[in-house]
Amino acid sequence: MNRQGILTVVSGFSGAGKGTLMKALLEKYDYGLSISATTRTPRTGEEDGREYFFLTREHFESMIEQGELIEWAEYVGNYYGTPKKYVEDQLAAGKDVILEIEVQGALHVRELFPDALLLFITPPSAEELKNRLVNRGTESMDKIEERLSRAFEEADCMQQYDYIVVNDELDACVEQLNEIIINEHSRTLRNNSYIEKMSNELKAFKKGDL
Amino acid sequence: MNRQGILTVVSGFSGAGKGTLMKALLEKYDYGLSISATTRTPRTGEEDGREYFFLTREHFESMIEQGELIEWAEYVGNYYGTPKKYVEDQLAAGKDVILEIEVQGALHVRELFPDALLLFITPPSAEELKNRLVNRGTESMDKIEERLSRAFEEADCMQQYDYIVVNDELDACVEQLNEIIINEHSRTLRNNSYIEKMSNELKAFKKGDL
Repeated sequence: MNRQGILTVVSGFSGAGKGTLMKALLEKYDYGLSISATTRTPRTGEEDGREYFFLTREHFESMIEQGELIEWAEYVGNYYGTPKKYVEDQLAAGKDVILEIEVQGALHVRELFPDALLLFITPPSAEELKNRLVNRGTESMDKIEERLSRAFEEADCMQQYDYIVVNDELDACVEQLNEIIINEHSRTLRNNSYIEKMSNELKAFKKGDL
Repeated sequence: MNRQGILTVVSGFSGAGKGTLMKALLEKYDYGLSISATTRTPRTGEEDGREYFFLTREHFESMIEQGELIEWAEYVGNYYGTPKKYVEDQLAAGKDVILEIEVQGALHVRELFPDALLLFITPPSAEELKNRLVNRGTESMDKIEERLSRAFEEADCMQQYDYIVVNDELDACVEQLNEIIINEHSRTLRNNSYIEKMSNELKAFKKGDL
């Protein structure tokens, strides 16, 4: 079957439990993570190519110009971004890579990687989403309302994802995400070369090679 | 999420181990099976609606005319076929139904049920397919060559299936089939009403219902 890695992009409503889910998934299963590039100074103990790729502003800006970043942003005077080559190298080596990206970024990734698998994480219902945000107890009602308003906008993009994954129970959801990614390797569209090979071999047998 | 059952159609090369696989899958998991209709006389112990729907020739022929059969064939003077209504009723009740059908029939089912999930079972390689057929030891070389020749023709249709499932190890393959069908319920295309409901509920919150 196909040996190319799959680039999985995970998005979801704020309050859907994405962060906890990603952490549990990556602890339990062996996925490639993208390492971000940044122009900020390394902190004590941080290593280039482990926590981040530490780059000069000139280097980072030339990567932006050359289209070498999947996505990037400037935050408090420093650039942060996802280098395309690092992700491509892992995929070519057969490693499945997971990116957690918000909705607009995810749709941009699909343009760069048409074969990307897009998963959208959602709580079972809007009511449950509201409850989770309220019960965190860390945010004002204004902030919660803002998040729900943003969720409404994001809901418009759900149609463009491949799967809608309901995060009702953490462990079950982790298993489901892993199963979806594994089984995606068996999708016919990802196995054209396998089909061609099988067809050619069967053709050879036809000629009486028994 | 979506509660409509999924109609799964399983096909595969002769020698791919489909029969054993289906038996194991249906013993372990709770799928709806289609019950065939026939015009032959019930044998001792057979019950109408359990082994078969036993019909008169007139009834069966009117079902053919009315397009009430998913597929049918005549064999040794009797008709055999798969009633559409029985499958539709199970799907409407949220039951996933599995049909094991050869390639041409499977593509016909897709025309009748555009949402059907088509799975193609294959051994790991053409060499392995040949070995399985040869090692059965029950068939002449001519017969094996005929099956391989047919497999070559069937390979042309693999592209039209949704998944290519390699049957390398029986238990693992049973699990994979079950996972694919379960996770197919989370496909975005099958969850339009869920997305719409979520969107409407989030819209209501926007109006300040906290």
